Amino acid sequence: MRPTFTPIEGGVTAPAGFSASGVHCGIKAKGLDLAVIASDRPASVAAVFTTNLAQAAPIAVSKNHIAAGSGRARAFVVNSGCANACTGADGMEHAAAMTAFTSRGLSCRPVEVLVASTGVIGVKLDIEKVRRGIDDAIGSLSPNGGADAARAIMTTDPFPKEASVEAASATGTFRVGGIAKGSGMIEPNMATMLGFVTTDAAVEPALLLRALKTVCDETFNAITVDGECSTNDCVFALANGASGVTLGEADYTVLVNALREVCEPLAIGIVRGGEGATKLITVNVIGATSNDDARRAARAIANSPLVKTAIHGNDPNWGRLVAVAGRSGSAFRLEGAAVRVGGIELFRDGTPFDERASQAAEYLKGKEITVEVDMGTGGAGRSHMWTCDLTAEYVKINAEYRT
Amino acid sequence: MRPTFTPIEGGVTAPAGFSASGVHCGIKAKGLDLAVIASDRPASVAAVFTTNLAQAAPIAVSKNHIAAGSGRARAFVVNSGCANACTGADGMEHAAAMTAFTSRGLSCRPVEVLVASTGVIGVKLDIEKVRRGIDDAIGSLSPNGGADAARAIMTTDPFPKEASVEAASATGTFRVGGIAKGSGMIEPNMATMLGFVTTDAAVEPALLLRALKTVCDETFNAITVDGECSTNDCVFALANGASGVTLGEADYTVLVNALREVCEPLAIGIVRGGEGATKLITVNVIGATSNDDARRAARAIANSPLVKTAIHGNDPNWGRLVAVAGRSGSAFRLEGAAVRVGGIELFRDGTPFDERASQAAEYLKGKEITVEVDMGTGGAGRSHMWTCDLTAEYVKINAEYRT
Repeated sequence: MRPTFTPIEGGVTAPAGFSASGVHCGIKAKGLDLAVIASDRPASVAAVFTTNLAQAAPIAVSKNHIAAGSGRARAFVVNSGCANACTGADGMEHAAAMTAFTSRGLSCRPVEVLVASTGVIGVKLDIEKVRRGIDDAIGSLSPNGGADAARAIMTTDPFPKEASVEAASATGTFRVGGIAKGSGMIEPNMATMLGFVTTDAAVEPALLLRALKTVCDETFNAITVDGECSTNDCVFALANGASGVTLGEADYTVLVNALREVCEPLAIGIVRGGEGATKLITVNVIGATSNDDARRAARAIANSPLVKTAIHGNDPNWGRLVAVAGRSGSAFRLEGAAVRVGGIELFRDGTPFDERASQAAEYLKGKEITVEVDMGTGGAGRSHMWTCDLTAEYVKINAEYRT
Repeated sequence: MRPTFTPIEGGVTAPAGFSASGVHCGIKAKGLDLAVIASDRPASVAAVFTTNLAQAAPIAVSKNHIAAGSGRARAFVVNSGCANACTGADGMEHAAAMTAFTSRGLSCRPVEVLVASTGVIGVKLDIEKVRRGIDDAIGSLSPNGGADAARAIMTTDPFPKEASVEAASATGTFRVGGIAKGSGMIEPNMATMLGFVTTDAAVEPALLLRALKTVCDETFNAITVDGECSTNDCVFALANGASGVTLGEADYTVLVNALREVCEPLAIGIVRGGEGATKLITVNVIGATSNDDARRAARAIANSPLVKTAIHGNDPNWGRLVAVAGRSGSAFRLEGAAVRVGGIELFRDGTPFDERASQAAEYLKGKEITVEVDMGTGGAGRSHMWTCDLTAEYVKINAEYRT
């Protein structure tokens, strides 16, 4: 049978055997600020972490736990409002304490708990508040708690990001769910992308990690709001097998596709909620000498303030796209290159089609924009990125917080 | 004797044997839009060009002329208002024609004329207007014409950029002058940095090129407004020997220092005139494993929208500097790292000094800001970049041009 993927409710608690909760413990002045996501049985775990060398304490602790835990874990504990980054030895102690408190409540070992934080850099956690919050959150764990957890990991994200699907394949029917919080420095020093993915399929840790990396590359690693990579970014996946379905090497494609069905809308949701964003922009690059070259060019375009402001202003400014593609570091041949905006070709082989500019300007007034650049090399390399427009509101949010 | 460098008037015509002019030929609706800068005798020439693979026609023609001209040249011809980029075969013909018209007026060979353009991408030159403008400009050439030339190469730069010095060394007294126009996409598709440097010292072309590259690396290549590299960027130097002073290998340091005395204020002028800029920001990076690593980190910081908006908002947000340094791709050690804003240490060895935040915020209200990041590696690598703040005006300028 051909696999099907049907959207379902529930987010991170849509898969069987998972419960979650979100509580207010006082890190933020108001609103949920602490989440626990737990599996009722040991689960395979996989994770990808920020490549930033200024790494927050929870990242260091979670890496250690994954290394020491033989690929198995039970739960995530996550706080918002404080990144626990640049906090020295106290920060490491606090992150470890969060896993210890959680493991006590769940009757598992600390090494089976992963921890993540998001919020202001350089501020220490009030660990006594966090301890009480964790007790609270564990007492509130519910198989319907996904939505609360999605809210509790937000900083000033404009909306929570949840997704879940039921996957039916020849191997059986299982579910994948996920929540994420946004990129964008919505408050000074807030710059974290967190993602938590659950599945009730049984998957060996190595296979789960391979699939998670592949999917992250196509989803969370294919978005940008402002080109910044935080000290706390991480995406975790837990696979607990509660569906009775086991996915092996032969099911790799189904696993990847199921994870993508959840991670892609979460990633796009982060861009939609990017600070000051008014448009979702899909950047497609084709005709590159390799997929890596295409990705490099797509990333340069997606981060270009000139491209992002032009699209904000509904300006079909193909010259900026050509200029960025040319300076991206990827192979580029001006003769042979082309630019399309919403399928409207504005430039090809050295010839501009200025008569189409007004049609393209009309298209750019929409909220979902696709631009395509052919690198002109004749190669088959292609890639994509999602980004948002750059607005005066972005500057305001990031400049005027303290005024 | 210890060399001295004394600022003098005259810009690009301050050195003996140079004349220049700026005229209006009608590429722009109003204002000077065409400049000629000429030496009264053959001069050594050196140039550095954009690394953008989408290269404008004048870049291609000037490269060919330099390759064919045995390191000698007589003049520059420059237009503003039209970049002559992405203009196909017609563009190449027009760029070559500009050198031919100029060479006829100056009774030299076309290969002795270098051409540069700046303005809108994808629009063709009205070559008949340009021809008349060149005739006009050659008729107006004057040893006091540097200021007109400086104005004629502007697009919407807020002010002209000129600098000149008299250098006195054991070898003799000579002069260096220069003009430049700004970066920043002040109009859509305007994104060009042009620089023209003259000296009345005699310098062999190879030595002149080596010195120019060294100085460009420390000046024009150490500035950023928005991280964009245009299709038309170029810096030229002409050395005509009219002072009677010959600079050889033994005078390399004097030559470099004299060129730097002119290029550094021009480069800083470009940043001051960056679109929407309200502050000049000097980014110093120290404690890196190499100067290259330091430059990479300084560039990442200077291009970070989060750093640029924080400084715009007078926010001593050291966490953003740490986060960018950590993701810059250069070696970084959080223990050992430090951040200083105007000499005020806000973070060192994992410890924030939040009690100094209000003092730093007060400092940031100034118009000239220095920030320093120690990468914490214990290495001796250091570098600097100049940048400006990111403002809502930048977005407005680049988004709302056509509305």
